[in-house]
Amino acid sequence: MEFTINQIAGMLAGEVKGKGDDKISMLAKIQDAKQGQISFLSNPKYEQYIYTTQASAVIVSKEFVARKEITATLILVDDPYISFTRLLEEYHKLVSFQKSGVEQPSFMAENSTIGKDFYRGAFSYIGSNARIGDNVKIYPHAFIGDNVVIGDNTIIHSGVKIYPDTRIGNNCVIHYGTVIGSDGFGFAPQHDGTYKTIPQLGTVIIEDNVAIGGNTVIDCATLFGDATIIRKGVKLDNLIQIAHNVEVGQNTVIAAQTGISGSTKIGENCILAGQVGIAGHLVIANNTGLGAQAGISKSIKEPGQRLMGSPAYEFGEYFKSYAVFKRLPDIQQRLRELEAKMQNAKSNSLPVD
Amino acid sequence: MEFTINQIAGMLAGEVKGKGDDKISMLAKIQDAKQGQISFLSNPKYEQYIYTTQASAVIVSKEFVARKEITATLILVDDPYISFTRLLEEYHKLVSFQKSGVEQPSFMAENSTIGKDFYRGAFSYIGSNARIGDNVKIYPHAFIGDNVVIGDNTIIHSGVKIYPDTRIGNNCVIHYGTVIGSDGFGFAPQHDGTYKTIPQLGTVIIEDNVAIGGNTVIDCATLFGDATIIRKGVKLDNLIQIAHNVEVGQNTVIAAQTGISGSTKIGENCILAGQVGIAGHLVIANNTGLGAQAGISKSIKEPGQRLMGSPAYEFGEYFKSYAVFKRLPDIQQRLRELEAKMQNAKSNSLPVD
Amino acid sequence: MEFTINQIAGMLAGEVKGKGDDKISMLAKIQDAKQGQISFLSNPKYEQYIYTTQASAVIVSKEFVARKEITATLILVDDPYISFTRLLEEYHKLVSFQKSGVEQPSFMAENSTIGKDFYRGAFSYIGSNARIGDNVKIYPHAFIGDNVVIGDNTIIHSGVKIYPDTRIGNNCVIHYGTVIGSDGFGFAPQHDGTYKTIPQLGTVIIEDNVAIGGNTVIDCATLFGDATIIRKGVKLDNLIQIAHNVEVGQNTVIAAQTGISGSTKIGENCILAGQVGIAGHLVIANNTGLGAQAGISKSIKEPGQRLMGSPAYEFGEYFKSYAVFKRLPDIQQRLRELEAKMQNAKSNSLPVD
Repeated sequence: MEFTINQIAGMLAGEVKGKGDDKISMLAKIQDAKQGQISFLSNPKYEQYIYTTQASAVIVSKEFVARKEITATLILVDDPYISFTRLLEEYHKLVSFQKSGVEQPSFMAENSTIGKDFYRGAFSYIGSNARIGDNVKIYPHAFIGDNVVIGDNTIIHSGVKIYPDTRIGNNCVIHYGTVIGSDGFGFAPQHDGTYKTIPQLGTVIIEDNVAIGGNTVIDCATLFGDATIIRKGVKLDNLIQIAHNVEVGQNTVIAAQTGISGSTKIGENCILAGQVGIAGHLVIANNTGLGAQAGISKSIKEPGQRLMGSPAYEFGEYFKSYAVFKRLPDIQQRLRELEAKMQNAKSNSLPVD
Repeated sequence: MEFTINQIAGMLAGEVKGKGDDKISMLAKIQDAKQGQISFLSNPKYEQYIYTTQASAVIVSKEFVARKEITATLILVDDPYISFTRLLEEYHKLVSFQKSGVEQPSFMAENSTIGKDFYRGAFSYIGSNARIGDNVKIYPHAFIGDNVVIGDNTIIHSGVKIYPDTRIGNNCVIHYGTVIGSDGFGFAPQHDGTYKTIPQLGTVIIEDNVAIGGNTVIDCATLFGDATIIRKGVKLDNLIQIAHNVEVGQNTVIAAQTGISGSTKIGENCILAGQVGIAGHLVIANNTGLGAQAGISKSIKEPGQRLMGSPAYEFGEYFKSYAVFKRLPDIQQRLRELEAKMQNAKSNSLPVD
Repeated sequence: MEFTINQIAGMLAGEVKGKGDDKISMLAKIQDAKQGQISFLSNPKYEQYIYTTQASAVIVSKEFVARKEITATLILVDDPYISFTRLLEEYHKLVSFQKSGVEQPSFMAENSTIGKDFYRGAFSYIGSNARIGDNVKIYPHAFIGDNVVIGDNTIIHSGVKIYPDTRIGNNCVIHYGTVIGSDGFGFAPQHDGTYKTIPQLGTVIIEDNVAIGGNTVIDCATLFGDATIIRKGVKLDNLIQIAHNVEVGQNTVIAAQTGISGSTKIGENCILAGQVGIAGHLVIANNTGLGAQAGISKSIKEPGQRLMGSPAYEFGEYFKSYAVFKRLPDIQQRLRELEAKMQNAKSNSLPVD
């Protein structure tokens, strides 16, 4: 599959500067690209490579001013990074092996329905009364429980397990091994020291355009009619824990191994780094940023803060304290010396008293 | 499915105050409940809702004294929370789709046995010489290795993987994607810098009434005859790591993403919050409580402590230190000022020396 | 299956001291071993047991000098621990049920190939154009995507999911539920607050002699031609997160629940404890040791360091600071007292000024 540079520029609404008829067959990083490949320059620290790259074409900003000669053909655009990701996306659609049809053996209950242009991999399982939209890809070993509803263009990868009654929107991607709708961690302590399991009867709702990584777990809500909710546009990484009755606000991004305890409500457009832990029954304001390994034990009411530490507080303040923490043995020593001097001073002045 | 309030009260050994013949078809939270639904009041901070709820019935404590008029019918019991969870449980049994029989294709070795009233989902796998009790539900894609023993009334959810020789008790629930019996992390360093794998030949024993969340991993013990042991009544959340030769004492509860290193022995009735890390070869006393993200590097000998921090120590002491940590830049500044003053004082007094 | 002590000593190139014709049928720990079993003594703190053990044979160091009478037959070797692990390994090969052949139903695309002496479990899936070597064991519910290449003697356990285009070497073991090649967590922020998914088009390369635990996730690289790389001899534990474009150097060992962010390069022979978090785009020098729960936010340039804390720094220094941290309330109090004394001193001396 090959395209001319002019064809690519047309797709990106960019302007060609150089040989627009040259052919492109592959995308690559600017420092590695070879003839016949296209790359991009966005971060100024890679500027040096544009003068030496063997790429046939480079996507650059309209604002870019070359300081030396460039042999590659340029495609000038507003935002080279966004243009390149768009290109990647189109390319991916074209080259990825488009799975379709049914591989056998697979299992689908008779009273369930699936729209057109679907793929159902071998050993995939669809329970009773499921309603699945158009162009949905269900990979091998995926488990879709009874009464699950899935929108259009959603991809359920291999080994994903979706409990009964879950609702998933359009254009979602759920990666291998992720579990959606498992029982929340609810146990009522009994007088004899044992715990009684509180049945978890709620569901999970995943809205449109949500991406979820591998081996993540999202628990269902506890009571009938309640749902753990992942709002539209949310991106969850691998190995994340989302407990029962949590709500994650739209366009919030959560990195790997973060855990959110029961009934906590995360705002919109938040960015949570990896290994963050958030206690239960909290409310986290919109646009909150949490540093890696932060621990959150209280609600965050003011939007737009960046927090760090466990328990977490303002990012810069945390690092100031931590800088002093590293000098604590010295500080303790200086305190001892001051105490000794003060003692001496007092002793010396004793006769005067 | 509907019950009268009198029927429900009978089941709970409660006393009806109001219209016992009204019908109930659903359970709900007191603030959300509608006509035909039943709710409960346990936490006093929700008392306001009992005066406005549209629930047809509310379960309350015998001790409850109303301060305003209540329209709902009341069921008076000793402990409303426990009664409500009991009701949830009964309801769950009734309404949950009772899977039974065999879905095809599924795999079970000829020399394995399973008791009565079982469910074996499509694509479930049972290896050689397994012994499985009555009323066991094995969901699609579950893997039961050779020689595994499972008691009665246990539920093995979709995608659970149980290695050969594991023993699981009665009334257990193991959620989607959890791995039981994988090789412990044992490698012997060699002189050339490589590692030789130490074969892991032990097993895992899970006693009765254990609940395990999704995508958790429990490693087998290292040597023949040894076992990693999860005692009766233990509740494990999602994404937990239990290393080889660990023992978790009965009725201990462990929240998500906590990790326990090899050969550590956790006592009974402990509560471990999320993302806790415990080093290897330790003994943790009964009734220990560990705060979220705590790191434990030494054995805990005295029972009943609550610990926090990494390395962890007494909860309240930790927070006192942390409060000062947040003021460290100020403390450093005050120390500098004292030093300067002392220096001045000394300089001023120099002529006197 | 039984061996004489002489046969075992021959295998280990050891010298027999005692009854070489006695029979051994099992391996066990020195404190638990019974007649007919063999054990070893390596750690001096277990020396007491050699005088009381009922083991028929004990493997000990050539240097070992008995202080009392020993009834067990001894096998003298250079390194008892290494000899015992070698024995465990041999024993494991002999007694473990050697799975082979194909269980049905299973799925393998027609244009894929697998070498001799293979096992393909029921419900295992091998996509198109896969190339799999000799003596490879693929357990039930394993998923091998299109174009995957696997070397000889590698074991793919139940429920492992390997994305298309992944390359795996010889003598690897991948435990249950692990995901290899899932999409990296790459999203380009858009002007309207949403994120656009950056297609992840790279692959994963796993070299020879790598062991990977259960429910771990390794993301693929972002661009064509790039790979997330796990070098030969690496040992990864359970529930680890390896992000896109990471490289883990040879013979590095990483404990459970550690997470490594995108594009970070870990050196050779490093040891990372559990729950460590490493930020993206860093370089970690060879032979680095990271303590449990350490957080790494900057590259580590000098090899051989041991670090602790979050952000992490030198191990011993961290613990010195932490010791003072625990006394911070006292230090604050002493500072206040000094300030008060200084204030008094000043007041007292005021008239003198």
